[in-house]
Formats: sequence, structure tokens, C-alpha cells
Amino acid sequence: MPRLIDQEGRRREIAEATWRLIRRSGLDGVSVRTLAREAGLSTGSLRHVFPTQAELLTFAMETLGERLGRRLAALVPAATPFAGAAAVLEQILPLDDERQLEAEVWFSFAARSRTDPDLGPAAGRVDAVLRALVREALAPLALADLELSVEETYALVDGLALHGVLWPGSPPPDTMRRVLHAHLAHLVERGRGDAERA
Amino acid sequence: MPRLIDQEGRRREIAEATWRLIRRSGLDGVSVRTLAREAGLSTGSLRHVFPTQAELLTFAMETLGERLGRRLAALVPAATPFAGAAAVLEQILPLDDERQLEAEVWFSFAARSRTDPDLGPAAGRVDAVLRALVREALAPLALADLELSVEETYALVDGLALHGVLWPGSPPPDTMRRVLHAHLAHLVERGRGDAERA
Repeated sequence: MPRLIDQEGRRREIAEATWRLIRRSGLDGVSVRTLAREAGLSTGSLRHVFPTQAELLTFAMETLGERLGRRLAALVPAATPFAGAAAVLEQILPLDDERQLEAEVWFSFAARSRTDPDLGPAAGRVDAVLRALVREALAPLALADLELSVEETYALVDGLALHGVLWPGSPPPDTMRRVLHAHLAHLVERGRGDAERA
Repeated sequence: MPRLIDQEGRRREIAEATWRLIRRSGLDGVSVRTLAREAGLSTGSLRHVFPTQAELLTFAMETLGERLGRRLAALVPAATPFAGAAAVLEQILPLDDERQLEAEVWFSFAARSRTDPDLGPAAGRVDAVLRALVREALAPLALADLELSVEETYALVDGLALHGVLWPGSPPPDTMRRVLHAHLAHLVERGRGDAERA
């Protein structure tokens, strides 16, 4: 099916051009004209592949999610539940250029979804995926209060990612890692303390 | 100086109209035309008071910061350092409509500042003020590693605020408070544990 394959390749290239544009000039910088130029297509071809901006942005987000999924699938089994949780959660922190781009694109998309109802469902799906990821990362730690720990950890990781997007390099990757590890250590200790008091 | 006072009052009214517009339709919804209508002014008067959008948005952010400052100044002295830290940090969580508006306006502004260099200095000042606020809140707790605790707490509070902006009501205010208190309790325990091991 060469035609179908070409079509998928083209959609992917457009998604990647969308990421680059969002990164460079924010979501406001993404128009049919600017994106066609970035992707090396005519505006007509672009409109043919993605008739609406919501379809384009939703696909661009899904493609980003697949990239995260591939990184998660490629993680080598961790020696301890603690190391495993840290390794998973580090995949959604902006610790290198690839993850920095993902965080920048995600926050632009999420911010827009607040006032664009067409993006709401896709933003909600990403939120659900991230939340489930945090829960799965923490589950093997056998924590005392998993639900509260998920809220706390999800907020912490998203706050670090937000700061990395707003002020690149502050906090630096090494500090983000230290903050995450200190937080996980505390969750584990809290669980232990509760068990000892019980 | 009735003329000066009128001028200040008008600037304030325009700032509040800007907040309402950002809240309703995002920063993309703020133009000379929409804002003049919202503030009940002619576009000429508006341009006279705020010649550029950067001046307008910067003033709107500063006015928001003053409102936070007044709430902080009005806090009654807390019974314990722990209660004091929680009370200060709760002022920057979207726990009621006033703080929800502040968080929505701040994140819109911060997101725009990423690609609009004219907003960078003002966004940097807000970041510095919030970071200093977190440090001041935590200082009386006599923590083992204040700098790491500031990073962790600032990320946690901003992550909770971000989630409150993106998905209003999820987590609900009561859960945000529980997460914050659990986090502060852990910081205090970590300090104690370190002291015992020393």
C-alpha cells in the first residue's frame, strides 16, 4: 500500500513541522501559511491532509505521545521499584532537548485547549495518559496513600516541566532529578513511617 | 491631584478588564478593540493610557501581584511555623475564584512571555517574587536543605495551580490543600530524620 504509507509519512512530517513551529513561535505562530512553508508543502496540500487546525494539532499531540510511548517501552527493567519509578517519571521531565520540546508543545497545546473547545478532548486524553503513567510508576512502591501520592507527584513533575519550559535551564536537569528523587524517597519513607506507627 | 487619581483609577479598571478578557478567551482574545469594549472606553483612550500591549499586560500583571501582596499582608500571625508556611503558600494556589483568576492570568502571561521578548522582564520579576515567597514561607521551618526544598515546593505549588487552571476543579481545593500539607509535613520530617542521623 505505497499510497497509504506515503500519506502516513506525510502526516508525520507535518506533525514534526508543527512541533518546530510551536517551539519557535508558540501556537500563535501556527497558521496554514507558516506551517505549509515549514513543511515544504502547498497550503492546498496541507489543507487536504488536515482540513482543520484542531485535527492537525490533535494529530501532532498524538504523535508526540507515541514518541514518549516508544521511550517508555525501551526502558530496561530497573533494579528496584524506586529506580523504576524514577526512570518512568524522568521520561516526562524536560531533561534533554527531545523532552524539552515535548513539554513546550504540550503546555502550548494544553493552554490553548482552555479556550478552544475543539482541543478539549485531546488535551483530556493526554492528561489521563500522564496521570495513569504516574500511578503505574508509583504502584510498585506500595505507598500508604496512593491517590494522594499520585496527585502530589503529578503536580511536582508538571511543575518542574512547566518551569523548564518557561525558564529553560532553571532549574537545570540535574536539580530536577534531585528534586524528583528526594520526593520519591519521601513518599517511600512516609509509607514506612505509617506502617511503623500502625 | 484629582487628575492623577482618575488616571490611576482608569488604569486599574483597564487592568481588571484585561483579567476578565484573558480569563474568558485567553490572551489571544485581548486586542485594542475587545479590551476597549470590555473596559467601556474608546480605542483612542485605551491607546492613550497604554500605548503598547506589553505595557498593558505588564501593568495588568503588576496589579495582580499587588492584590496577592495585600492578601499576604492581611494574614493573621500563625500559631506555628508550619501553619504559617501553609497559609502563605495557599495564597498562590487556586483555592477560590479570586486565586483561580490570578493563576489563569499568570499562566497565560507566562506562556506568552516565552515567545514575546517584551514580556520577558515582567514575567521574570513575577517568577522571582513567587520563588522568594516560597523561600520566606519555608525559612522558619528550619529545613535541612532549604534550596532543594524551595525548588520542590515551588514546583509542587505551580503544578497544582497549573492543573487547577487546565482542569478547573480537578484536583478540588480540598485535595490541593491536603497535598500541600502532606508535602510540608514531609519536608519537616526529612529535616528531623537528617538531624537524628547526624
